[in-house]
Amino acid sequence: MNAELITMGQNARIAAKSLALAPETQKNAALLAMAKAIRAHAQTIQSANDQDMASAKSKDLKSSFIDRLALNAARIEAMAKGLEDIAALPDPVGRLLEKWQRPNGMEISRIAVPIGVIGIIYESRPNVTADAGGLCLKSGNAAILRGGSDGFASSQAIITCLQQGLTEAGLDPHAIQMVQTTDREAVGDMLTGLGGTIDLIIPRGGKSLVARVQENARVPVFSHLEGICHVYVDRDADPEMAKSIVLNAKMRRTGVCGSAETILIDSTNLNSLKPIISTLIDAGCEVRGDAAAQNTDPRVKPVTEEDWSTEYLDAIVSLRVVDGVDAAIVHIANYGSQHTDSIVTANQKTAEKFLTEVDSAIVLHNASTQFADGGEFGFGAEIGIATGKMHARGPVGVNQLTTFKYQIRGTGQTRP
Amino acid sequence: MNAELITMGQNARIAAKSLALAPETQKNAALLAMAKAIRAHAQTIQSANDQDMASAKSKDLKSSFIDRLALNAARIEAMAKGLEDIAALPDPVGRLLEKWQRPNGMEISRIAVPIGVIGIIYESRPNVTADAGGLCLKSGNAAILRGGSDGFASSQAIITCLQQGLTEAGLDPHAIQMVQTTDREAVGDMLTGLGGTIDLIIPRGGKSLVARVQENARVPVFSHLEGICHVYVDRDADPEMAKSIVLNAKMRRTGVCGSAETILIDSTNLNSLKPIISTLIDAGCEVRGDAAAQNTDPRVKPVTEEDWSTEYLDAIVSLRVVDGVDAAIVHIANYGSQHTDSIVTANQKTAEKFLTEVDSAIVLHNASTQFADGGEFGFGAEIGIATGKMHARGPVGVNQLTTFKYQIRGTGQTRP
Repeated sequence: MNAELITMGQNARIAAKSLALAPETQKNAALLAMAKAIRAHAQTIQSANDQDMASAKSKDLKSSFIDRLALNAARIEAMAKGLEDIAALPDPVGRLLEKWQRPNGMEISRIAVPIGVIGIIYESRPNVTADAGGLCLKSGNAAILRGGSDGFASSQAIITCLQQGLTEAGLDPHAIQMVQTTDREAVGDMLTGLGGTIDLIIPRGGKSLVARVQENARVPVFSHLEGICHVYVDRDADPEMAKSIVLNAKMRRTGVCGSAETILIDSTNLNSLKPIISTLIDAGCEVRGDAAAQNTDPRVKPVTEEDWSTEYLDAIVSLRVVDGVDAAIVHIANYGSQHTDSIVTANQKTAEKFLTEVDSAIVLHNASTQFADGGEFGFGAEIGIATGKMHARGPVGVNQLTTFKYQIRGTGQTRP
Repeated sequence: MNAELITMGQNARIAAKSLALAPETQKNAALLAMAKAIRAHAQTIQSANDQDMASAKSKDLKSSFIDRLALNAARIEAMAKGLEDIAALPDPVGRLLEKWQRPNGMEISRIAVPIGVIGIIYESRPNVTADAGGLCLKSGNAAILRGGSDGFASSQAIITCLQQGLTEAGLDPHAIQMVQTTDREAVGDMLTGLGGTIDLIIPRGGKSLVARVQENARVPVFSHLEGICHVYVDRDADPEMAKSIVLNAKMRRTGVCGSAETILIDSTNLNSLKPIISTLIDAGCEVRGDAAAQNTDPRVKPVTEEDWSTEYLDAIVSLRVVDGVDAAIVHIANYGSQHTDSIVTANQKTAEKFLTEVDSAIVLHNASTQFADGGEFGFGAEIGIATGKMHARGPVGVNQLTTFKYQIRGTGQTRP
């Protein structure tokens, strides 16, 4: 294992210890100082990004990749503002989660505490450096960041500002560190936990990055591989509401994990089929449907078995007519990714059945799947969405980056 | 991978699905029917155990091992009673954990749901079969049990009763299954998750079993490797309370994970040293102490560096004089196992410092470490204690065997 990385892990572990006990005011002072430093050094960050961009453009990279790498004045300001927003959140550490008294008089409290050291592995998206660093700091965790090599100079310029903020507030600058090597083995070392110094890995990026992390990590991971989200339009759905939710769930933003990829429509509600298909196609969405859908509108393309398990992240949707809510639940169990699924219905009983039986992190009734987002939950900011069932499920905000301990206050109790 | 095990995993996954939706009354009916079946077949269970015992006695096994393997009428009745106690607990599934409303009117609820399929790997202690099976069932999880080969016949007789109870209550008998092979590869297969069918592993047994599981598991594990628990007697401790808590923490039962292994005493509280040492030695405990302790009482044996990180699980204790609460916290951070640690003091400020800064699953003020137990927390029954920081920490009862989902109820909301 890379000796520099081991030192980084050990320094992170020491920083985590002091950070866990840092008062709220000090953490917030650091976040505000970080924001200020980003604004003060905006030109340096922009120059570093220009350098990354020039190098990236000389390679044959996708335009979406280049777009995520690019910084400008607005994006740099958004990073600074994001850190200020995190400062404004309530402190997740020290929250009293539960409290009860035992018959012998002992008082048991369950208190939120930081997890420890969090490794963030991401692609060449410089703003993740500031977001992830800020969220980890607020939740009292040390962060080890490993961004994509194409954004190295940009991330380096940003991390300098973050560490300046930490130092100004009197916090250990090792609380947020960036891996200084861009070779791929560094990721492998992080996935093994850097000799017991990393407690948790959060990958941020495309499916291949997440798949690599999930397959090889020997420490816990918060992640989702993909968001194959469904909207089921029930027989008792209000037609206008169905149209509006389907359109929003698919088309508001097609590249986010909470966008719908499959629309399921009850077979006894074929009246809804035509307007829903028209609405989607008129909005520029390609609809791939089964025979019923194709018979309804000649613009519908044939769907294949593979479509049901495809996350398009694009203006394409698959559409299937199903026999009622039970068939919809079975379809979602077979093809879904336990991320986010929605039912549109005016029937309360059918809605409750769907909300209970669909085994996804987020299930909605009469609302768009695009609400699958920490900000929309009121979490303030999120570091990602998890579809695993352990610890955090759904949006991961600062509260979800904490664990807990039991504090017991007694008056001399011994156990009989 | 063993084909029989793969089938077992697939059957467990199917059972978990129906079990997750089983009403409380049905799960409780099954638990009561299981208890009844154990009583009805007590003779069969006893005969199977006699067979296991005869075979074990022909080997050269430790007497503590033989004792854990042995069943008798009282122990069989205790298993039945344990299942009835689990039936009497509130249903952990469907609990409303949090609920809030968003400005757009959407109502977000966080609801407890089962984890899925839990693998339990344990030694030749037949009662774990009933306990673990019952706790998993109550929490809506399917269980795959793998007990030690020396208790195979006993566990098999018990599992037959459990499955009879499941069937009588109309539940899938695959909800609790037992691995039918005693070869060690079966454990390895379980640790990889049986082809994605096991969500969580809980080991129950000695340190070598837990270490093997922790090292090799590719799925989440709830466990503690050891309980190196401390009692720190502060300068402001009430002398009588200190004596009584130290004695109880060490000697009530020496073989449990919450028993104290090291006593730390403030150097400005040397008056307490003599009575504490006398109390321990008079109760039959060997005290291994530093120079100050040896000077206080000639019966104190010298302590070595290794003692500080030794879990004796016996009537032996190490004792160190430290310079105040800060030194105690440092000692615990260096040598503890993040399990359970206690401070005895009348000083509220010192107590709060200890409760905040000691990074263990359970921290106590003026109470014995032997309260580290799900029953003592009011959890009803526990499947073990976890010292990891993810998901469950401290005693693992039925609530800790659940995860959650978000249910969102809207009235047609779309995201702007």
